[in-house]
Amino acid sequence: MHRFKISEIGNNVFWLKGPEREHLVRVLRLSIGDEIIGFDNSGAEYKAVIEAIGDKSVTCKILEKDYPEVEAMAQVYLVAGLSKGEKMEWVIQKGTELGMAGLIPLRTKRAVMKLEGAKAKNRVERWQKIAAEAAKQSHRVKEPKIFPVSNWKELTELLPKDTQWLIPYENEQSQGLKTVLDKLDPQCPIAILIGPEGGFEEKEVQWSQEELKAHSVTLGPRILRAETAAIAALTLVLGYTGDLG
Amino acid sequence: MHRFKISEIGNNVFWLKGPEREHLVRVLRLSIGDEIIGFDNSGAEYKAVIEAIGDKSVTCKILEKDYPEVEAMAQVYLVAGLSKGEKMEWVIQKGTELGMAGLIPLRTKRAVMKLEGAKAKNRVERWQKIAAEAAKQSHRVKEPKIFPVSNWKELTELLPKDTQWLIPYENEQSQGLKTVLDKLDPQCPIAILIGPEGGFEEKEVQWSQEELKAHSVTLGPRILRAETAAIAALTLVLGYTGDLG
Repeated sequence: MHRFKISEIGNNVFWLKGPEREHLVRVLRLSIGDEIIGFDNSGAEYKAVIEAIGDKSVTCKILEKDYPEVEAMAQVYLVAGLSKGEKMEWVIQKGTELGMAGLIPLRTKRAVMKLEGAKAKNRVERWQKIAAEAAKQSHRVKEPKIFPVSNWKELTELLPKDTQWLIPYENEQSQGLKTVLDKLDPQCPIAILIGPEGGFEEKEVQWSQEELKAHSVTLGPRILRAETAAIAALTLVLGYTGDLG
Repeated sequence: MHRFKISEIGNNVFWLKGPEREHLVRVLRLSIGDEIIGFDNSGAEYKAVIEAIGDKSVTCKILEKDYPEVEAMAQVYLVAGLSKGEKMEWVIQKGTELGMAGLIPLRTKRAVMKLEGAKAKNRVERWQKIAAEAAKQSHRVKEPKIFPVSNWKELTELLPKDTQWLIPYENEQSQGLKTVLDKLDPQCPIAILIGPEGGFEEKEVQWSQEELKAHSVTLGPRILRAETAAIAALTLVLGYTGDLG
């Protein structure tokens, strides 16, 4: 059954507007009486039947409310250095499928790409759309939040105080991810800091260790591209917390 | 230092030919006296100095031979259903960085893409080049082998007899990857079967369970794209075997 993000919800009914309505009407060509699934980022999922199709909204009658156990128990965030081209896009797509709670695009010293002002805002909006699509496709009931493009000093304000920070770092030779995860509290959020193409500068790693109490970890002896490191670290953490089967 | 794949090796000397020579001369513009690193897929790495640049080959004098501990201990193979576009290419790129031993492109029932004859051969050659590039970039000393496009019945001939097969499958609800890995022998090769976009047909999964004694596993409740499942499963297996730090 096709899945849609709910625009507005009432008593036993919800409405699909804008692009969701467009997609239902123009692309999928569904009609009155067809059954669909709606979700509203609350963690609930609604089986519904299309009751009316207007030129501004589609009215759907709720048949069934469910709380599928599809979301990861662990709250794992990616904090990813801005990188060129489509890399961020696919980190967001894959990260959403795997079950990340959200992603913070980070300005770093070695970033090739600069994103400021309106350009940054638009980019984040596009990234949020990619997260929304991937959430649908993977049958999630909550979209990961894509945060505004941020600087190091803003990080602590964006995530809960009890967030536990991890920073994969090529100069960290000994401390493996599992050793660190054994020490962390799975009930508290985990944030994984991933550098841009050029990697973090040592000063940035030091800052994260001092200010965020970040644990530096090695992902092994092979040099991973930034986007590969992001997806691998996320997978290892969600695997450790039992969120990948 | 720049890394090159050795074309021919002798006593305290090696030669770079064809594209490797081109890359050294035209792209990197290195000259006599410059130091480079060469590898020959034997597991060894050679520090060398450029002695002569000819129009067919570059002669490099070996200064130092080393066996860096950069390759994964576990032999993990991906067997990936043919899928459209660039998906296979990035599974090969990411899989190589992470440390896969090799990849078998598999013809499956739901494959959207057909690859036969010369077209298949050329595609495999291109995929091998991508693996070679990713091996260099991640500082590996062995390129993963990209096998010919194969059918189900050929699989057992391509990998060692004691290979242990895993098949992530959406209808497998209970058996997690870790439960299965606890039962496997880390000394023997592990092959992970990943479907095409549409996933495997139930008959294919049954065949793998009967003929390959494949263990079906779940990667959790979220629906993963084929390429995401491939990289996630590979990461979880290499993480379990201690090959990702």
